[in-house]
Amino acid sequence: MDQELGELSENDFMLPPIKYEYLDHTADVQLHAWGDSLIEAFEQCGMAMFGYMTELAYVEIKQVHTIEANADDMMGLLYHFLDELLFLFSAEPFLICRKLKITEFNAEEFRIVCKCYGEEFEIGKHPQGSEVKAITYSAMQIIDEPKDNKFEVFVIIDI
Amino acid sequence: MDQELGELSENDFMLPPIKYEYLDHTADVQLHAWGDSLIEAFEQCGMAMFGYMTELAYVEIKQVHTIEANADDMMGLLYHFLDELLFLFSAEPFLICRKLKITEFNAEEFRIVCKCYGEEFEIGKHPQGSEVKAITYSAMQIIDEPKDNKFEVFVIIDI
Repeated sequence: MDQELGELSENDFMLPPIKYEYLDHTADVQLHAWGDSLIEAFEQCGMAMFGYMTELAYVEIKQVHTIEANADDMMGLLYHFLDELLFLFSAEPFLICRKLKITEFNAEEFRIVCKCYGEEFEIGKHPQGSEVKAITYSAMQIIDEPKDNKFEVFVIIDI
Repeated sequence: MDQELGELSENDFMLPPIKYEYLDHTADVQLHAWGDSLIEAFEQCGMAMFGYMTELAYVEIKQVHTIEANADDMMGLLYHFLDELLFLFSAEPFLICRKLKITEFNAEEFRIVCKCYGEEFEIGKHPQGSEVKAITYSAMQIIDEPKDNKFEVFVIIDI
């Protein structure tokens, strides 16, 4: 590498056309969330997902929506909970959440009801993060150990 | 999903602490570049890489640096060419290129000399794109068909 110190000529500033493109962007990210209860760990995991979609500091609480998720086991419940949240964003009301409050968490019937606080996603106001394409069951972990006060979840999402 | 229309209370605006983190972000992207010559396709491929690192519209031409790349075959040459460009950015002079001009392209000795026009990367001025971690040989393709006027390269980079 050799720095040239000469003056730049007018020609040096002429720009070429663009003859390139980007293909096949594949990626995933693992969300790791925890709390003082499994309920809080679920809430935090949902927030982690929204935090990947934009910078949450720009999101105001203007609306509240309620979602329900049902499943046959705990992993399914986590999956469907996140999927319902993703759906809130992907379609009307296009909600970006700033806060989640699970109001019902039934660990026997595997049912969640959650209040979702936030506002409609707005380009210009909210920095665009990564598009979350799907929740996955891949390497999913739910750690629920009350005697150690250990409540954690791990979820891989496709982006 | 059920929208609640009631007023939001003061409590609704209180925000929880953050108890999550992101792990294991893995990704790659394939660059596809072309031109009226293999030389132009190489130049365009280098620009595609810088275009992934920031938005090129924000980059001004203020400096010019010269790099050299040598290899034992054409794929090695493309690899080392991109790797030299990446090195321009990763260390002094921390150059983001706006324009590349290959001044020597020796397809027998596999040697490139290239003028690199741009400026030092500056947080705040240049939007931060993805960090390019490495060039790879994975699925690399160099299409050099003068009789069809077809000059294209495909390179996967780790981000």
